Amino acid sequence: MTNAGRNLLPSWNDGAAKQAILEFVQGLNGFPAEERVAVFDNDGTLWCEKPMPIQLDFILRRLVEMAEATPELRDRQPWKAAYERDYSWVGALMAEHYAGDDTNVKVLGAGILAAYEGISVEDFEAKSDEFLHSAQHPTLGRGYLECSYKPMVELLAFLAANGFGNYIASGGGRDFMRPISDELYGIPRERVIGSSSTLDYRTDERGGTITHRAEADYLDDGPQKPIRIWSRTGRRPILAAGNSNGDVPMLQFAQHVDKPSLRLLVRHDDGEREFDYTSGAEAALEQAANDGWTVVSIKNDWATVF
Amino acid sequence: MTNAGRNLLPSWNDGAAKQAILEFVQGLNGFPAEERVAVFDNDGTLWCEKPMPIQLDFILRRLVEMAEATPELRDRQPWKAAYERDYSWVGALMAEHYAGDDTNVKVLGAGILAAYEGISVEDFEAKSDEFLHSAQHPTLGRGYLECSYKPMVELLAFLAANGFGNYIASGGGRDFMRPISDELYGIPRERVIGSSSTLDYRTDERGGTITHRAEADYLDDGPQKPIRIWSRTGRRPILAAGNSNGDVPMLQFAQHVDKPSLRLLVRHDDGEREFDYTSGAEAALEQAANDGWTVVSIKNDWATVF
Repeated sequence: MTNAGRNLLPSWNDGAAKQAILEFVQGLNGFPAEERVAVFDNDGTLWCEKPMPIQLDFILRRLVEMAEATPELRDRQPWKAAYERDYSWVGALMAEHYAGDDTNVKVLGAGILAAYEGISVEDFEAKSDEFLHSAQHPTLGRGYLECSYKPMVELLAFLAANGFGNYIASGGGRDFMRPISDELYGIPRERVIGSSSTLDYRTDERGGTITHRAEADYLDDGPQKPIRIWSRTGRRPILAAGNSNGDVPMLQFAQHVDKPSLRLLVRHDDGEREFDYTSGAEAALEQAANDGWTVVSIKNDWATVF
Repeated sequence: MTNAGRNLLPSWNDGAAKQAILEFVQGLNGFPAEERVAVFDNDGTLWCEKPMPIQLDFILRRLVEMAEATPELRDRQPWKAAYERDYSWVGALMAEHYAGDDTNVKVLGAGILAAYEGISVEDFEAKSDEFLHSAQHPTLGRGYLECSYKPMVELLAFLAANGFGNYIASGGGRDFMRPISDELYGIPRERVIGSSSTLDYRTDERGGTITHRAEADYLDDGPQKPIRIWSRTGRRPILAAGNSNGDVPMLQFAQHVDKPSLRLLVRHDDGEREFDYTSGAEAALEQAANDGWTVVSIKNDWATVF
């Protein structure tokens, strides 16, 4: 490693992952700026996703509000679990999902969509913004906005300084992340790709209003990730970073026959500083080994996590 | 008008439209760069849409190819009309459409979707690129790539020089325009919003392939325009330009209570240099008069058209 390299990415330990990143970027000398597109999953890649995705906390709080206002909802899932703070229902649902049973995922999905039915996109963003600037992570002793991974934020800045356009390609909600993507990651709102509900437009005196419908437009996960990346950017990225099985197609899509490319898979193996889990990442880890993707071990590759 | 103003937008005649543009941009002194979002319809706003939209010519040629390869198609619409060069069928269909009958619009739509079923996004772009670089406009005596309006191209450059992010928000196909948007308008491919078919992703040895399905994902027209602009940019534009009824919601969406905004409606009133028509623009022209949008008369406001 060169001396210059030592000063870059200071939150990364010297090792194969940091080396791969630096060599990849150095190897792009003369590579067109407009083709420098990098895509990042968000939950578990740029910020923490345990004990539950941050957006799920946001939604459960809204379901509690709804159950408080409308007692009949307290006997129906997912409001019942939210109202009773029965997070085991959500945990069981994830285990069922990984076992191939999405019955309760659909029950939760319907609740998620109902939670913000009819809200304007501006009001939704204001709620997300306020939540993310005030709510605390349940176990890490820090606000949610302090739950992004410092080494990944450094990587984003390093790529931007090298002419990259960085995009978030998240399974989470596009409009949930937009209010904070620039502040947190230096990624402007037009570069946030993510899941979305269907939207309605109606004409009014204030220049028209766009509202959420209780219907998914698309879930930006699995094979939808490359499709949504293409739809947004019109390009095949040369760098993709993810951490779970839902990121596999996006990571595969960043392969090139005739151009350099880098695929990063974050491995959650640090129970002390973050969380230690492979559930939901088994296929991704296997694919990483087979295809030579760069596995980033939180324990070994990151000098600092947050 | 200042002397500086005279040197700007040289293809625009001095008049109310040019004045409104210059005053709007001068009034943005200190306005945040990231909120300088401008959206432009394409057909009839940035380039010529008569005697038929350029993309329709592209599609009819493909339908002819299909009918040549598969004789049974020659008795079925829209292949029959394409094969027999019976453009009156297409003309009648547009008249029916404006009269509220979309039966044949759907017949044509199914043909359009079938025309490129299964093609990869890269192959589709290569076909569009080749067509646009070689085909001639049927009556104007120029190639299609010379059918963009010079005053609008100047306006795009003027806005870009003033920190704007310019987007195309077209009813036409997003992936049809992407290969030429930068060359023609200085608009990079990630800023092209437009209609799209549903896409499929499948894993393969080359990093996965995205293909067109014979099913519309959405038609970027009418109320879908503000929705797709919001979905892509996360912002309410401060400038919108269109020319037809399908642009009305987009133009309304560029209204602001507390910020400057400019709405431009191109009026096709120059049968000598371009075309003279109001069909499909009646509601837009009425709305422009009611809401004080800036109407751009091709005949009076443009010194040069192409």
